[in-house]
Amino acid sequence: MKKVDNQALVIFGASGDLTYRKLIPSVFDLYINDSLPEGYAILGVGRTNFSDKDFRIKMKQGIVEFSNLKGIDSKQIDDFISKLFYVSIDTKKSDDYSLVKARLKELNTKFNLNNNYIFYLSTPPELYSIIPKYLYGQGLTLQHKGFRRIIIEKPFGNSLKSAQELNKQLLDFFEEDQIYRIDHYLGKETVQNLMVTRFSNGIFEPLWNRNYIQHVEISAVESIGVEGRGGYYENAGVMRDMIQNHLLQVASLVAMEPPAKANAEEIRHEKLKVFRSLRPLSKDDLRSNVIRGQYTESHVKGELVKGYRDEDGVAKDSRTETYFAMKFFIDNWRWSGVPFYIRSGKRLPTRVSEIVIHFKPSPAQLFKSIDGAVEQGNQLILRIQPDEGILLKTGLKVPGNGYEVKSVNVDFHYSDLKDHYIPEAYERLILDCMIGDNTLYMSGEGAELTWEFMQPILDYWENDPDAPLYGYPAGSWGPDNADELIESANKTWRYPCKNLSDDGLYCEL
Amino acid sequence: MKKVDNQALVIFGASGDLTYRKLIPSVFDLYINDSLPEGYAILGVGRTNFSDKDFRIKMKQGIVEFSNLKGIDSKQIDDFISKLFYVSIDTKKSDDYSLVKARLKELNTKFNLNNNYIFYLSTPPELYSIIPKYLYGQGLTLQHKGFRRIIIEKPFGNSLKSAQELNKQLLDFFEEDQIYRIDHYLGKETVQNLMVTRFSNGIFEPLWNRNYIQHVEISAVESIGVEGRGGYYENAGVMRDMIQNHLLQVASLVAMEPPAKANAEEIRHEKLKVFRSLRPLSKDDLRSNVIRGQYTESHVKGELVKGYRDEDGVAKDSRTETYFAMKFFIDNWRWSGVPFYIRSGKRLPTRVSEIVIHFKPSPAQLFKSIDGAVEQGNQLILRIQPDEGILLKTGLKVPGNGYEVKSVNVDFHYSDLKDHYIPEAYERLILDCMIGDNTLYMSGEGAELTWEFMQPILDYWENDPDAPLYGYPAGSWGPDNADELIESANKTWRYPCKNLSDDGLYCEL
Repeated sequence: MKKVDNQALVIFGASGDLTYRKLIPSVFDLYINDSLPEGYAILGVGRTNFSDKDFRIKMKQGIVEFSNLKGIDSKQIDDFISKLFYVSIDTKKSDDYSLVKARLKELNTKFNLNNNYIFYLSTPPELYSIIPKYLYGQGLTLQHKGFRRIIIEKPFGNSLKSAQELNKQLLDFFEEDQIYRIDHYLGKETVQNLMVTRFSNGIFEPLWNRNYIQHVEISAVESIGVEGRGGYYENAGVMRDMIQNHLLQVASLVAMEPPAKANAEEIRHEKLKVFRSLRPLSKDDLRSNVIRGQYTESHVKGELVKGYRDEDGVAKDSRTETYFAMKFFIDNWRWSGVPFYIRSGKRLPTRVSEIVIHFKPSPAQLFKSIDGAVEQGNQLILRIQPDEGILLKTGLKVPGNGYEVKSVNVDFHYSDLKDHYIPEAYERLILDCMIGDNTLYMSGEGAELTWEFMQPILDYWENDPDAPLYGYPAGSWGPDNADELIESANKTWRYPCKNLSDDGLYCEL
Repeated sequence: MKKVDNQALVIFGASGDLTYRKLIPSVFDLYINDSLPEGYAILGVGRTNFSDKDFRIKMKQGIVEFSNLKGIDSKQIDDFISKLFYVSIDTKKSDDYSLVKARLKELNTKFNLNNNYIFYLSTPPELYSIIPKYLYGQGLTLQHKGFRRIIIEKPFGNSLKSAQELNKQLLDFFEEDQIYRIDHYLGKETVQNLMVTRFSNGIFEPLWNRNYIQHVEISAVESIGVEGRGGYYENAGVMRDMIQNHLLQVASLVAMEPPAKANAEEIRHEKLKVFRSLRPLSKDDLRSNVIRGQYTESHVKGELVKGYRDEDGVAKDSRTETYFAMKFFIDNWRWSGVPFYIRSGKRLPTRVSEIVIHFKPSPAQLFKSIDGAVEQGNQLILRIQPDEGILLKTGLKVPGNGYEVKSVNVDFHYSDLKDHYIPEAYERLILDCMIGDNTLYMSGEGAELTWEFMQPILDYWENDPDAPLYGYPAGSWGPDNADELIESANKTWRYPCKNLSDDGLYCEL
């Protein structure tokens, strides 16, 4: 690993929830795992009127509650939080940024930070264009002495136009290589493992194309609803929340060509090629290959669950989608004719995120299967969460007389790795930014290309009053139309919990 | 499964060890599993002067001790053994066979056997040509009323010439389709699963050739020595005992083309094609690609273990091999240039039988591995015994920062199949003979072709006094020369127990 230079992390939105639950606990875990440099400081910036001490006390609670590590003692936390500082400003007032500059100057001297600063924007999106401008106004974005990097939290725009504007504004004050657009999905261990699995195993790459793959499925579903965040969700919806960013990023890792080298530049280049090869959605595609749904009141495991429109903060006639599924194509030599299916939704039967490579069945069926395994073909499942691992659905002989075949799981679970610490996504991402590696961050062009691909869907929904929105009972697998997208004799989504136990409580993944 | 007709099983060598330990317990297990027909009888034939009752008492002990089933009650055994009968004859006296005929006639009427008889020759090999002749003399081999089948135990000859002669003698009295040459390895669940795995999974066949496979390894090793059978072993050696029959049969299942249909005739046809494609061993091959060894006295796990020449019944200057390894080629389109390595031996560090498909490493190495996994390539391991299963050595990302790769086991163990009974090899084989399916038996031509391939080795050993025989310490992995056969930068045998724990007791498979 590259050497980590002395530096400061400046967090805007330091009194917010993300800082408390994720950012500070993650940096603490980096500290305990010896990944922080000798000279280090964290400066929280926010509107709340905290002293350094107030900030430290609050962050200590966050660490105790949310650190990924076991068996931490209080002394270690106290050592760590002694490097936390806080400055209260009105982030919309240009002049207030001189306070940030002054405090950084002081910390720079005290901790020998070599003028290296990361600015982390954990704020409402409307500040993404304001803060860079005012940092620039104080000369804080120029790298003539140390490095200056900026991390932008999601969402990166909520439409093609807004993403383009945001890129343009950022590039007025930072160079592209200073900008780190976060997609915390890319920080997940199993997502990174996808690339390693493909390119470190000689057996997968020969099969990884239209000759052997029937279809690709990427699912990220959850059983919870909007959980009190109805107000926020009304303006987002699952397409913006999950698909345009996380799942299209994952799709690009599934579909990319082997990069020339395993570095950020080459990997970004290959991912962009995938986005550029996306077949634009036609009017027919919008009507037939994109399905949105909204959960309705239902009994789940014996309990009555509210419909989406009855949630707090949600309009009674809301058209916001809580379920989204689509079929699309990547028009290049490797993937021509192979459908990709992506789905995500709330209030589905379980919580699971996985990539399923559905291979074509064997061309001739010598042996009969008792469960359709041979007819359906092998499946390679890369489980992102929960129970991270890799699973190959394989047809094996049923023991005993004859040659019947059944499908079994040939698998590996990360939890079997007793000797390895699996870091949280934010740990990985923050450390990568600290060493200047943006492999796992979205490029500006990538963000725009994925928005370009999805924008026709937003337009269709907005402009066509007949664009359907299907209800689905909470606790079901979404609208039936989504099944019809994909299902044929030997083709289906994977339903990890389709066969619930009788009491509805047990769900085999 | 086909219907099982009423029939009798006639066992020659009924007072012997195989009958006691394997055959009767296996037929009993078939009985409990409801695989025997309504009309059924077993007639033991042997020189020992047993009554029916004596025979039943002895076999009851055998069942109690060796049945594969759990929780049998004595009543079930008594029901079963009531169908056991015994006739004492001198198997070398032609006239005595009239006693067998008379007893069969009686059983035929009593149990309504429809004149269907299987003759099982569990006798010393010198009787394999005598018994058929005398059965023929009594008209017992003709199928004008019921079926007549003969099962020949191993060894099927001990040289090319003797195998050819034996085939010729058998064919004087039986048709080829009446002859069942046993190879109990082919009755093993995992060996049968090899064919199912290859031809029921669309993902393996595209990789199963010279383009993706670097080399194939078939190992069947054990930690025990000759265990008091030195006298027998002196005239056999591991080449005759394991290689020419079992492991070459397994190799043919690894290498065969997909059969047109999953029936005995088509599968035999494809196996024979493999044997005919074996590249004959040249003089150089005999010197360089065939290694034999003999274990010498050594300390194993703290105990002194005798050398082979000190075993009872073994000559002090014995040249019999207790270790054998060879490299050979199959000259056809699929396998051209892919070396096959086979080894077997006694007094090695562990007991394991497995097929290892060593795939070529990925063509470009993007990520560094911490254990040589990427450099070595994937391995697909089909474990025959112990802990039957399938195991794919796969390079995965080491959790944490960076992109280091390590090899993990993506695996399936038959023991996970809680709801399936795994039959003993003899159960499967006897039942197959009962229904007239000889898929898992050796064909006469197959036996001769494998002997033809191996005979030059026997000739070389016999005729060249300089043909080397290497000593190896008991408890080691055999002569170093065998390692040199295969080893290069990224190529090696798999050593399931190379890394013994410090106390030498723990051996990870």
